[in-house]
Amino acid sequence: MSRLFNRLASTITVKSTPSKAHLHQPLPPSSFPTGYLLTGVHAGVKKKPGLLDVGLIVSTSDHPASAAACFTRNAFKAAPVVVSDEILTKNGGRARAIVVNSGCANAVTGRQGLEDAWAMVRETDALLPPSAFTAENHTLVMSTGVIGQTLPISKIVDAIRSQATPTRTLAADFSSWERAAQAFMTTDTFPKLRARVFTIGGREFRMAGMDKGAGMIHPDMGPATTKFGALHATLLGCILTDAAVSPRSLQSALTYAVERSFNSISVDGDMSTNDTILVLANGAAAAAQDGKVVEIDEETDKEGYEVFKTELTQFAVELAQLVVRDGEGATKFVTVNVKGAPTYEDAHRIASRVSTSALVKTALYGEDANWGRVLAATGSVSFPTLDPSKVSVTFIPSDNTTPLPVLVNGEPEVVDEVRAKEILGLEDFGICVDLGGVGKEEATYWTCDFSYEYVRINGDYRS
Amino acid sequence: MSRLFNRLASTITVKSTPSKAHLHQPLPPSSFPTGYLLTGVHAGVKKKPGLLDVGLIVSTSDHPASAAACFTRNAFKAAPVVVSDEILTKNGGRARAIVVNSGCANAVTGRQGLEDAWAMVRETDALLPPSAFTAENHTLVMSTGVIGQTLPISKIVDAIRSQATPTRTLAADFSSWERAAQAFMTTDTFPKLRARVFTIGGREFRMAGMDKGAGMIHPDMGPATTKFGALHATLLGCILTDAAVSPRSLQSALTYAVERSFNSISVDGDMSTNDTILVLANGAAAAAQDGKVVEIDEETDKEGYEVFKTELTQFAVELAQLVVRDGEGATKFVTVNVKGAPTYEDAHRIASRVSTSALVKTALYGEDANWGRVLAATGSVSFPTLDPSKVSVTFIPSDNTTPLPVLVNGEPEVVDEVRAKEILGLEDFGICVDLGGVGKEEATYWTCDFSYEYVRINGDYRS
Repeated sequence: MSRLFNRLASTITVKSTPSKAHLHQPLPPSSFPTGYLLTGVHAGVKKKPGLLDVGLIVSTSDHPASAAACFTRNAFKAAPVVVSDEILTKNGGRARAIVVNSGCANAVTGRQGLEDAWAMVRETDALLPPSAFTAENHTLVMSTGVIGQTLPISKIVDAIRSQATPTRTLAADFSSWERAAQAFMTTDTFPKLRARVFTIGGREFRMAGMDKGAGMIHPDMGPATTKFGALHATLLGCILTDAAVSPRSLQSALTYAVERSFNSISVDGDMSTNDTILVLANGAAAAAQDGKVVEIDEETDKEGYEVFKTELTQFAVELAQLVVRDGEGATKFVTVNVKGAPTYEDAHRIASRVSTSALVKTALYGEDANWGRVLAATGSVSFPTLDPSKVSVTFIPSDNTTPLPVLVNGEPEVVDEVRAKEILGLEDFGICVDLGGVGKEEATYWTCDFSYEYVRINGDYRS
Repeated sequence: MSRLFNRLASTITVKSTPSKAHLHQPLPPSSFPTGYLLTGVHAGVKKKPGLLDVGLIVSTSDHPASAAACFTRNAFKAAPVVVSDEILTKNGGRARAIVVNSGCANAVTGRQGLEDAWAMVRETDALLPPSAFTAENHTLVMSTGVIGQTLPISKIVDAIRSQATPTRTLAADFSSWERAAQAFMTTDTFPKLRARVFTIGGREFRMAGMDKGAGMIHPDMGPATTKFGALHATLLGCILTDAAVSPRSLQSALTYAVERSFNSISVDGDMSTNDTILVLANGAAAAAQDGKVVEIDEETDKEGYEVFKTELTQFAVELAQLVVRDGEGATKFVTVNVKGAPTYEDAHRIASRVSTSALVKTALYGEDANWGRVLAATGSVSFPTLDPSKVSVTFIPSDNTTPLPVLVNGEPEVVDEVRAKEILGLEDFGICVDLGGVGKEEATYWTCDFSYEYVRINGDYRS
């Protein structure tokens, strides 16, 4: 209870946030999907010269890429969200390019914001080679940064037009992918870029993607109305593959993947007005019949679809975890697993609450095995059939040493505090909340701790 | 975007939490209700000698006091919550005493916890003078402190028994009320004690109460299942009056009052396993007919009931606000008002989300008029009929100077940052979110900022 007598600190020594630089490494060119050109340029949205703030991604495949998206469910959808959603609908799930800017979210910017988002689309459309694809617009748009400020649109337009000149930098090499990823960054400390090779029916495909986000991270995205009641975050990401998937099946695979990846992470429990994940499948590596690309579809090729859905989900989880690892001020990467729930939604809601609890997150920062806070958070959003006398909580080290049960069937264990300190001293560990078999469903969430650094970063974000 | 290049701080200079000592002042003896004896003693639950950790409140009225309670809706209800609930039900809403301990919550303590809570009840029952009231138990029990540890019950029993000896300290003077209030404290920096005089039908009554809480504060309490979906926190409180109100009407008045007071505050968005508000109405100042006390009832005396409900609600708000003012690390006291909602629940849910947003609360600490975060929080829990183009956000100074609109009908204002700094520099101010008349309902929430000090306090609570 020393707190009683010691509430006025003057200076605090801060555990410095570990560098995340090692999480960005060169990737072999062979791991990137074929049929895409990318670049990132400095338009001047970010004041600091040389900082990339506009990214372009162009599919060069003759086949108009299937496109799918999950957007924030926030009521105050930013202009780029509204515009991309409209284009995707009009095009019946097809697109050929993506344009993104960082430094300004173009959110809550009224009519001007919509005009600016459309301008970014039209300018990017103008860069694209002729195509049999007859839609009015071929480009999807994303923005991230401060809310309530209008874009310096002329600077952005000039930057896009520069790609129509001999000095264009659109290319397919690693550094072009890297520049595009850098153009997504706001408070991120490293560009988030990953790639993987996978096979469907013996045929080899590639998938690469980038995302950004460090704060205002608790996405709840979907194509329609959410199944989850959680609160949520700006997260932007795109995944590009040279497989061919029908628009309908690409959307259902993405919806499934996003629920188990981006919609299962939290840095601060705040949902953004801009959260967007886009996927393009250009079929550049797909088989063709009579010159027509054969698209995977859940009805005509269930097996191929399931393989693709699994690959997409695993890849989305990989990208989503990078955001949590780079969470503002984060010193811990914590996996929260809730099992034994009657439904996935029940497990997900509890995992979300534990992952966003300020008391749990400050205890994680303090490396304090304060399982009482985990339990209080669990109980605050539980369901009627929950039996407290069946609930167990276990801390799980990431180094494969023995897990530490702290609560078993509702009864506190005598906790070995030394062992607890060992586990919570790790940068990675897990918390498992077993609800005791009122059901068999489970959900996994990824979160970080709540540090002094988080308060410092967000106490003066705009200044 | 300086954050990009400046994520590793080493030491931080902290705005010191302003002292709250001035919020505790002596109160005139005439403002306390008649027919109550109180004390606070040091039993040794708190290690530090002299710190009061067991409080006793006894009604000396012959008339068995009407008793009502609101308990946490957390699934992991602490033993004292379970026991008090059971006694209240068995007694048909009557009780004669309250015993409270601080320093240990007796939560998640299994069978032993229940035995200990019952022991506190029985020992307090043994102190009570003979009465015509024939119930088996006459005492309600409350505990607050760390979760998952069992009570040092023999120390507590000895402390209670000490009140049966000539050295008993149970009394009715201000310092006895003050000692009882001190026995509630955990991380509180001052005892929270208030009193008021009111009249019903020309007759004068008194109401006094005490509460505690500084962290794990986001209560959602009720006699039954909640109407609100919010997340929630330990808050303990009791209100004692010498009016006479029927048990049924005392409960309905308390339920109404708690929804608009204790269920409308947040320090950290975490709901406790112990939240409890108790009310005793002993009728010591009430009129009697044929020697029987006449109790106010909503059916037989609607007018008197409405007056009492209003007095109880205003008093509950006064006690609830003290908790927010003493919030762990709090440097700001912020009133969040949401209006123009279709239902009270919609307005309450949005006010709750804005009041718990980590991004909003860190901006408040940074005195940053970052209304975009307020809007993002609002949009994350809004309702289908919300029209973003009708929403307005205004910062309201507490010094009655001109409010500052930052968003009007969905369009950002050009904000006078100097004026914004003036308002956010105040210790008290308000944020009004006007949803633009999709309805006429409104709700008010009280919250505080999120400071380095909060992280420090909760990063090592148990140590």
